[in-house]
Amino acid sequence: MQVESPKVESTNVETLRWREGRLELIDQRRLPLEFDYVACADAVQTAAAIRDMVVRGAPAIGCTAAYGVAVEAQRHATSSRAQFDAALEASFKVLAASRPTAVNLFWAIARMREFHAQMRSVSPQAEAEALLALAKQMHADDIEINRTMGRHGAALIADGARIMTHCNAGALATAGHGTALGVIRSARDAGKRVSVIANETRPYLQGARLTAWEMVQEKIPVTLATDNMAGHLMQQGRVDVVVVGADRIAANGDTANKIGTYTVAVLAERHRIPFYIAAPLSTIDLAIADGSGIPIEERDAAEVTGFRGVRWAPEGVNVVNPAFDVTPAALITGLITEKGVIERPDTAKIRALFGS
Amino acid sequence: MQVESPKVESTNVETLRWREGRLELIDQRRLPLEFDYVACADAVQTAAAIRDMVVRGAPAIGCTAAYGVAVEAQRHATSSRAQFDAALEASFKVLAASRPTAVNLFWAIARMREFHAQMRSVSPQAEAEALLALAKQMHADDIEINRTMGRHGAALIADGARIMTHCNAGALATAGHGTALGVIRSARDAGKRVSVIANETRPYLQGARLTAWEMVQEKIPVTLATDNMAGHLMQQGRVDVVVVGADRIAANGDTANKIGTYTVAVLAERHRIPFYIAAPLSTIDLAIADGSGIPIEERDAAEVTGFRGVRWAPEGVNVVNPAFDVTPAALITGLITEKGVIERPDTAKIRALFGS
Repeated sequence: MQVESPKVESTNVETLRWREGRLELIDQRRLPLEFDYVACADAVQTAAAIRDMVVRGAPAIGCTAAYGVAVEAQRHATSSRAQFDAALEASFKVLAASRPTAVNLFWAIARMREFHAQMRSVSPQAEAEALLALAKQMHADDIEINRTMGRHGAALIADGARIMTHCNAGALATAGHGTALGVIRSARDAGKRVSVIANETRPYLQGARLTAWEMVQEKIPVTLATDNMAGHLMQQGRVDVVVVGADRIAANGDTANKIGTYTVAVLAERHRIPFYIAAPLSTIDLAIADGSGIPIEERDAAEVTGFRGVRWAPEGVNVVNPAFDVTPAALITGLITEKGVIERPDTAKIRALFGS
Repeated sequence: MQVESPKVESTNVETLRWREGRLELIDQRRLPLEFDYVACADAVQTAAAIRDMVVRGAPAIGCTAAYGVAVEAQRHATSSRAQFDAALEASFKVLAASRPTAVNLFWAIARMREFHAQMRSVSPQAEAEALLALAKQMHADDIEINRTMGRHGAALIADGARIMTHCNAGALATAGHGTALGVIRSARDAGKRVSVIANETRPYLQGARLTAWEMVQEKIPVTLATDNMAGHLMQQGRVDVVVVGADRIAANGDTANKIGTYTVAVLAERHRIPFYIAAPLSTIDLAIADGSGIPIEERDAAEVTGFRGVRWAPEGVNVVNPAFDVTPAALITGLITEKGVIERPDTAKIRALFGS
């Protein structure tokens, strides 16, 4: 199969966009083989796009959910207030049920719901416009947050650093720029020569497909490795620092991220390689004391027994497919946020972030 | 794609066999989708089968190489002594160049070469018969060694144990029964209820394809996991013991095995899970003091950028593809051999094995 990588300027990776009254999402299931957008005309379609991983990555899921509410509001802008309210309640529910682990999803829905609660006295038409404006604001904020986070994180990256990352915490996982890859982009923009080792990230291969593609677009040198090579590469002294994203961070700093992150963190500790999490405050869930309380999504067995319709495992085998794992705070060198970097995160330091 | 696992009784998994003057090998590239044999009519074809991974696994490669010499000897049985000797020398050379890491390959070739050196006074015809008999003896010995190793190793496996293994160190990696999977088979045969967690073992997926298939055939419960789930599964207390094979063991116990083994060993140590290597003495290379001297094969990038003609990584990405890594002896709880189990292997204990 010939792979023609679609050419998109990095600054123009519009993971999600609002066009002609609909939400459009880059179809990340097909990248890097094909580059195309999927349109979502209502909340149900938006929830399906999240569930089916047209869009993935905690911040991107949050923005998508906000637009999912906005698109539903648009549909019912000329309905009665009762019908409008019912449609919005249904949209909160269907979107919240799409995926369980990324807390940004619930954070975004909560923001839309609170806004909605304050708008009962205006017309559905006016509220629909306001909800869309809020979704657009959250979208713009996410990009700005990522750029700020990138600047904070870039200070931790040495000139010449060989940076391992896992999964895709890039522009595609956010509204733009990226969290972990945002740090890498910002380091490069600050004049540092950086290179990336992308773990392929089975089963869904976000590293091989999405991170590799983003880095090729950026002309940042990127080396693809299977996940099980991480230990060997560290043992050989070929990794200087690890930077990954997060799907949900507990109040004590325990971090749920793509399956395999914990393994990389254990390896990094053994080899005394700094291990950083890059995530916005919206990924921190203060309601959960530690990692044991974070729900871990179990996905379909077919993702593990093969890939895209090509099956290679025999019939009769059992399968596990947890989409995430939890890295204890003790293994995390630093948490990179838009409010700065917390070294060795713990409950007190994280609480202080929100207080400031 | 529908997968119909070929039904083969476990005791009948004939990884390699001698039929009508030719060597026949199960084509492991196609398992578990198809079950078929590839015939090798000379040493060049045999070397190609090893290089292309029709057959893999250190003990199986050793036996295959012995037959590769034998089949070449058969071809030249009616040639002059000079022609016969030249053909044999060429066969040693081409077979030794097939793959670099598994020491059993060089061990088997050395045995055939030594035998050849003692047969200069007999006819090529008689020597060809004798070389074939020696190859068959090495084949039978390997099965017997695996059964003995299995008995020693089974004593380490508790009733109800959930055993993680990496790659395929099974009947398919040997002349039969297997090394790591031989221990599991022997434990089951001793009446223990065991279950297996098979790491899929990217890039070549020997765990998903071969170990899963062997265990399904044996009716031993097997759960398939991607390699990056190993840490999470251990963290959750779902792994009791790790047993893997080896491709080359240095004099001090440092062990080269399939890429990813080192990562599993580091994780096992963190979680205080016993980590065993099961390998015959022929896998130990006393000429190499420690793991730093073991050559590590680098394989083709296409194995990492996709699988079987399906490519998923973008153009422009660099790739690493070391086929093996080295686990330091300090991470190895025990080395299971046909002469018994060495706990915490080191140079003195390994030397003593050969002395006895």
